[in-house]
Amino acid sequence: MEMVEYEDAGDAVRAVYDDIMATRGVGWINNFWKALAHHPPTLARTWAGLKEVMAPDGALDPLTKEMVYIAVSVAQGCDYCIASHTAAARKAGMTDAQQGELMAVIGMAAETNRLAQGLRVPVDPAFEAR
Amino acid sequence: MEMVEYEDAGDAVRAVYDDIMATRGVGWINNFWKALAHHPPTLARTWAGLKEVMAPDGALDPLTKEMVYIAVSVAQGCDYCIASHTAAARKAGMTDAQQGELMAVIGMAAETNRLAQGLRVPVDPAFEAR
Amino acid sequence: MEMVEYEDAGDAVRAVYDDIMATRGVGWINNFWKALAHHPPTLARTWAGLKEVMAPDGALDPLTKEMVYIAVSVAQGCDYCIASHTAAARKAGMTDAQQGELMAVIGMAAETNRLAQGLRVPVDPAFEAR
Amino acid sequence: MEMVEYEDAGDAVRAVYDDIMATRGVGWINNFWKALAHHPPTLARTWAGLKEVMAPDGALDPLTKEMVYIAVSVAQGCDYCIASHTAAARKAGMTDAQQGELMAVIGMAAETNRLAQGLRVPVDPAFEAR
Amino acid sequence: MEMVEYEDAGDAVRAVYDDIMATRGVGWINNFWKALAHHPPTLARTWAGLKEVMAPDGALDPLTKEMVYIAVSVAQGCDYCIASHTAAARKAGMTDAQQGELMAVIGMAAETNRLAQGLRVPVDPAFEAR
Amino acid sequence: MEMVEYEDAGDAVRAVYDDIMATRGVGWINNFWKALAHHPPTLARTWAGLKEVMAPDGALDPLTKEMVYIAVSVAQGCDYCIASHTAAARKAGMTDAQQGELMAVIGMAAETNRLAQGLRVPVDPAFEAR
Repeated sequence: MEMVEYEDAGDAVRAVYDDIMATRGVGWINNFWKALAHHPPTLARTWAGLKEVMAPDGALDPLTKEMVYIAVSVAQGCDYCIASHTAAARKAGMTDAQQGELMAVIGMAAETNRLAQGLRVPVDPAFEAR
Repeated sequence: MEMVEYEDAGDAVRAVYDDIMATRGVGWINNFWKALAHHPPTLARTWAGLKEVMAPDGALDPLTKEMVYIAVSVAQGCDYCIASHTAAARKAGMTDAQQGELMAVIGMAAETNRLAQGLRVPVDPAFEAR
Repeated sequence: MEMVEYEDAGDAVRAVYDDIMATRGVGWINNFWKALAHHPPTLARTWAGLKEVMAPDGALDPLTKEMVYIAVSVAQGCDYCIASHTAAARKAGMTDAQQGELMAVIGMAAETNRLAQGLRVPVDPAFEAR
Repeated sequence: MEMVEYEDAGDAVRAVYDDIMATRGVGWINNFWKALAHHPPTLARTWAGLKEVMAPDGALDPLTKEMVYIAVSVAQGCDYCIASHTAAARKAGMTDAQQGELMAVIGMAAETNRLAQGLRVPVDPAFEAR
Repeated sequence: MEMVEYEDAGDAVRAVYDDIMATRGVGWINNFWKALAHHPPTLARTWAGLKEVMAPDGALDPLTKEMVYIAVSVAQGCDYCIASHTAAARKAGMTDAQQGELMAVIGMAAETNRLAQGLRVPVDPAFEAR
Repeated sequence: MEMVEYEDAGDAVRAVYDDIMATRGVGWINNFWKALAHHPPTLARTWAGLKEVMAPDGALDPLTKEMVYIAVSVAQGCDYCIASHTAAARKAGMTDAQQGELMAVIGMAAETNRLAQGLRVPVDPAFEAR
């Protein structure tokens, strides 16, 4: 799919691109948004959602959010998302040691997930209590 | 699958059960381990791995690790693991607001993963640089 | 894996290739079938199944079927299948606006799937009634 | 997780619940929203997104959207979502024959996805052209 | 979904049910087929495919096929399929030790899959050679 | 991610590399381990686990284990793992006919998984008995 470049974009798309660059303090748009721009309502809705969810003033700090994002992306097999959010996590301060542990936790979770599913382990009553 | 209870377990399994309870400071064993105990080498190896990966003195704090664990478990659809690690995250201090944001990030990641995959978005060169 | 070209194929494989081209009204075979052709029984069975399921005279129209095919392929992360069935959907008349909405629905479903799983939402009795 | 019932909900949650019921012309709220209501921003954002994406006046008709939703939910293994969107598709007019074909297409896509991935089939240049 | 019982089934469905029971040497039909029977073409096609693929005289022995079936079912999170194919594998002679190792391999594969994906490991040229 | 080559590795990493080469009787290290080597504890733990699980003297023969490994890798969509374990299975003696049947079983399982999930088929009591 051809990417929608800023100079070829209509006003609605440019407004989103401008907000992305302003919010992130960068001067370029990554391919994800340029691909979404073929359907401006999806571009606008997705950016608004992402901006709200990843806002820096929440109950979780930005690095934790990026690591959770990576975990989902790995478990769902999205190569683009792994690449982009690993870059974002690095920018948010993820160290080599943190990345190593992140991967270790993701791998361990993947393994125990499959063991629990394969053995059809019933949920303990203590975990149901809420 | 019948759970292997402590009183029915052999020495190798009891040793793991004892270490689980001592490490966690609890007096019971959850079903995951009781199901794994049918194959003692897998029980021992899995527990040793989990203990190492989830150790409290790493580069990531225990709550962050539990949230990453939840993220993978949701993305892989393991109901048992979601229940058990949500309980663990609660025990590690996860607040309602943090859980709400965690779910929001997981959901947003799941959505953008599928958009990026569905549109076959090429990885930006800037994200490849490492 | 080397692709099995028509000129190198045995009679059983050629018969399938001929039927694929005749059914689709095209003069070439795409790589999926050329890879399957290493195991002729799987080639024959898979093509017969696909031909039956995707037949144009069913209760669902061909474009709807292609969009469902894309949805599954995105959710399972099959890049080849996304590419080939997006091409097929285009050929069946999918417009830019329809593709945009298709992706929006896929993304929204992916997000709400993970929210429902992560929160372990019980099925409402009204949805069980059948 | 306890469901947030209307009578226990705050104003922000009630406003969403009211809009859900008005939009759908029903007098009750299903569990998905009652679970999300523990985090009002996620409830509001998710409902606004769903309402926009599933709006009846788009390029795709409502039944097609529900069938795409089901396809993703099956491929991602979300039991709640399969149940709720199958009910919605029925309400939107899905016949037995259509449901049968929908499942056939989903199954066939799932099978060919794995064959293409397992054989590492390269994308044909014809499918790359866009 | 209501199960289609033998006494309520039409001739086409009964013919499949009869063949299932004869092929397997059993006197009952499991729920999977009774659910598929709502769409007789899918029932017939799926059973014919399964019968061919799982035939006992192939290059792989029946127990190996059942274990591969379990592996896929665990990795895709299909609880019904895990239960039914674990029963089938038991019937085909799977021992406790074999089941224990099967689960260990599935878990290890799940873990290393995610590590390789998460680190975006490039395929070695030696593995490309075919 | 840059691969950690033997000549650039520290003692802990070299010890693992040496053991991998000795165990496998080969003179090179594949990229998976070179990527993991950025976090030596994960490298050491993962190799120790893999070596134990894939040991040749278990209840399952090495080729069966490799085919199960492939099945999981296909179902989870790990391209690297499909490539590396297909090569390993070939080395362990997998014939063309066996690979063909393996793929056929994986595909059939993928299809019936989704049919069972999509129709929400309840587990037969006979499959619960253990």
